[in-house]
Amino acid sequence: MKTTILLFFAMMLGSMCFAQSLPAVIEDFKPTPVNQPGREYPQVNSEGRVRTQISAPDAKYVQLDIGGKKYDLVKDEKGVWTGESAPQDIGFHYYQLNIDGASVPDPGSLFFFGACRWGSGIEVPSDDQDIFAKKDVPHGHVDEIFFPSKSTNSSPRAFVYTPPGYDKETSKRYPVLYLQHGYCENETSWPVQGRANFIMDNLIAEGKAKPFIIVMTYGMTNEIKFGGLRDFDIKPFQTVLVDELIPYVDANFRTLADQSNRAMAGLSMGGFETKLVTLNKPEVFSYYGLFSGGVYNPEEVKEHSKLKLIFLSCGSKERPDGVKNSVEALKGAGLNAVSYISEGTAHEFHTWRRSLHQLAQLLFK
Amino acid sequence: MKTTILLFFAMMLGSMCFAQSLPAVIEDFKPTPVNQPGREYPQVNSEGRVRTQISAPDAKYVQLDIGGKKYDLVKDEKGVWTGESAPQDIGFHYYQLNIDGASVPDPGSLFFFGACRWGSGIEVPSDDQDIFAKKDVPHGHVDEIFFPSKSTNSSPRAFVYTPPGYDKETSKRYPVLYLQHGYCENETSWPVQGRANFIMDNLIAEGKAKPFIIVMTYGMTNEIKFGGLRDFDIKPFQTVLVDELIPYVDANFRTLADQSNRAMAGLSMGGFETKLVTLNKPEVFSYYGLFSGGVYNPEEVKEHSKLKLIFLSCGSKERPDGVKNSVEALKGAGLNAVSYISEGTAHEFHTWRRSLHQLAQLLFK
Repeated sequence: MKTTILLFFAMMLGSMCFAQSLPAVIEDFKPTPVNQPGREYPQVNSEGRVRTQISAPDAKYVQLDIGGKKYDLVKDEKGVWTGESAPQDIGFHYYQLNIDGASVPDPGSLFFFGACRWGSGIEVPSDDQDIFAKKDVPHGHVDEIFFPSKSTNSSPRAFVYTPPGYDKETSKRYPVLYLQHGYCENETSWPVQGRANFIMDNLIAEGKAKPFIIVMTYGMTNEIKFGGLRDFDIKPFQTVLVDELIPYVDANFRTLADQSNRAMAGLSMGGFETKLVTLNKPEVFSYYGLFSGGVYNPEEVKEHSKLKLIFLSCGSKERPDGVKNSVEALKGAGLNAVSYISEGTAHEFHTWRRSLHQLAQLLFK
Repeated sequence: MKTTILLFFAMMLGSMCFAQSLPAVIEDFKPTPVNQPGREYPQVNSEGRVRTQISAPDAKYVQLDIGGKKYDLVKDEKGVWTGESAPQDIGFHYYQLNIDGASVPDPGSLFFFGACRWGSGIEVPSDDQDIFAKKDVPHGHVDEIFFPSKSTNSSPRAFVYTPPGYDKETSKRYPVLYLQHGYCENETSWPVQGRANFIMDNLIAEGKAKPFIIVMTYGMTNEIKFGGLRDFDIKPFQTVLVDELIPYVDANFRTLADQSNRAMAGLSMGGFETKLVTLNKPEVFSYYGLFSGGVYNPEEVKEHSKLKLIFLSCGSKERPDGVKNSVEALKGAGLNAVSYISEGTAHEFHTWRRSLHQLAQLLFK
C-alpha cells in the first residue's frame, strides 16, 4: 500500500515534469512586424513563443538565445534548423542566435540597438499594441540632427519628433519633452523600438495629447561598467543636455522655450539621469517622468516651486509598490504626482511605451 | 646551359606564382568607422584588405564572404577565428560571414540595407573620403517622414535632407532634388551609406553648392526578379513620386515648387527610374542625373524645353565610354550635358557619393 502510494506520487510527479518540460506548442505561428522584407522567420505564436529558422548545413548545433535562456533548434534533412522558445512576455525583446558557439544576429529580423549592440529584436503581440501601431492618421516627422557640443568636442546625434502640422503652421510654437533611453541603448531606442513617434501620432489624432516636440539623444550611459552606477557622474551628460542641446533645439525648432513648457523623462537608467538632472537643475523642467527608473521623495523636490507633475511608472512584474508608495508620499506633501503600473510586463520596452502613452496625455495641460 | 635556363625560368615562374597566391599582408589593419561601438573588428589595412574576427569555438569553418568570394578564417587555441580578404576597391561594400554554412551578419559591424537585406557593410578608405566625412561644420537635418499614398493604400517612408539654417530662416524657400537608390536598396541607402547629408553639409560649408532639399524614398524596385528589368513597370512608382510625394513635400516643406527648381537623379536602377520618369513627365523636372544608370540620347529629350542639365556618371571600372559618348552627343545637339567618371571605382557607393558631390555643385545655378 505504502509502495503503491509512493509509486502513484512518483508517476504524478513524472507526468507533471513531463508536462512542464514538453508542453504542447500551439501551431499558430506568424511572421512578425520586425521581420526583414520577404522573410518568413522569425515567427511568434499566440502563447508568445518565438520560433526561428536558419540554414546551417554544416553546424553541430544552433540555439535561439532569448530572455537569458538558450533553446536548441532541430536540423532537418536539408540542413535547415528550426526551433522555438518558451512563451515570452508581451512586448519587445532583444535576442540572438548561437551557431556552434558564435553569437550572431538572426538574419531574418530587423536590427535594433539594445544590450549595447545592434542585433535582433522581436515583437510579441499584446492586446494594446494598437497604441504604437502605424495607422492611417497624420504623421509627425522624426528629424535626425547633429548639434554642436563644445564640452565633448563633437557633434552628437539626436532625434527630434515634430508633431503633424509642425511644418505647415510656420508660426506656432510647441512645448518640448526630453526623453532618455536606458543603459546599453542609445538615441535610436525611443524612435525605433520605442515607437515614440507613432504613440504621439495616434494620441494627437484621437485628441488625447497636446501636440509637443520630443527630443531624444544619447545619454552617455554605456561607457560605465555594470555595478558602477553609484559612481556614475551625471555632469558630462547634464552639460550636453542643458547647456548645449536645449539651446540648439530652442534656436532651431519652434519651441516654447521656458521651464513651464519643458519636460524630462527617461526609462531605467534614463530615469536615473532624469532624477539627477531635475534635482541638480530645478529651474529647467516643470514635468518629471521616471519609467522603471526610481522614485522621488517629497524632501528632494520641496524647493521646486515650478514643478507641475511627477510621473512614476513600472511594470507589474517589477516593484510596483515602490512607485505607488512614492506617489502617495508626494501627494501627501501636496505635489501633483501620478503613478502608472503596466500590467503583465517587466523591465522592457512595452512597459515604457505604455508609460509614454500615459505621460503624454498629462503633459503641458 | 639549356637546362640551367629552363631551371631559372621554372624558379622565376615558381616564385611569381608563390608571390601571387600568398602575397605578404601589410600589418597596418585598423578598426573602421562602421564598427559597432567598442568593437575591434572588422579592420581594414592600407591595401584595402578586410580582416574580421569572431569567437566560434565549436565551428568547423568560418568564412568572410565579400565581393563575391569567400575567404577562410583561421581558428586559434581559444576558438577565435580571424582572417582577411584580398584587397577590395576603395569605398563601401556589403559583406557577411559564413559559419558552418549559415550566412549571417558580422556582429562586429554596423548594419546597412543593401543586397535586399539588412546586413554588414565595410568602408575601405579612399583619398577623397573627406568629401563625405562628418566634419565640424553646420549640419542639416534628415527628417523621417511618412506621406499619404492613396495609390498604394499606405504611408511610405521618405527621408528629407534640409540644409543648415533651414529651421532658422523661416521664410526662405529651397529647390529640391529627388534622389533614388538602386536595386535591392531602399530609402535608407542614400542617407546612411550614401552619406548624402554629410556630402551636402560639406559642400555648403565650402560655398560650393547652393543649399537645397534632398528627398529620398523607396523606389519600389525590390519586388521584381533579376532579369525582369525589361518588364519593369515604372507607373506605380511614378504615381507615388509625382502625384503623392512631390505634393506632400511641397505642402510640408518650404520648397520652390516649380519645375525649374526641381531635379531628379538616381543610381543604377534608380537611374533607370529617373530616365523613365523624366521622359514620361517632361514637365516636372529641369535637372536629370543618372549615376551608373544609363544614358539619354538627344532624340529622347529634344522636346524637353525646360531641361537645364543632364548629368551622366559611372566608375572607371564600369563603361565610361558609354557615358562620355552620350554626353558628347547631347552637347552636339545643343544640350547642357556633363559627364563624370569616378576614377578607380566600380558599381558601388563610392562612385555614387562622388557623383552626388559633383552633381550638387551644378544644380540650381
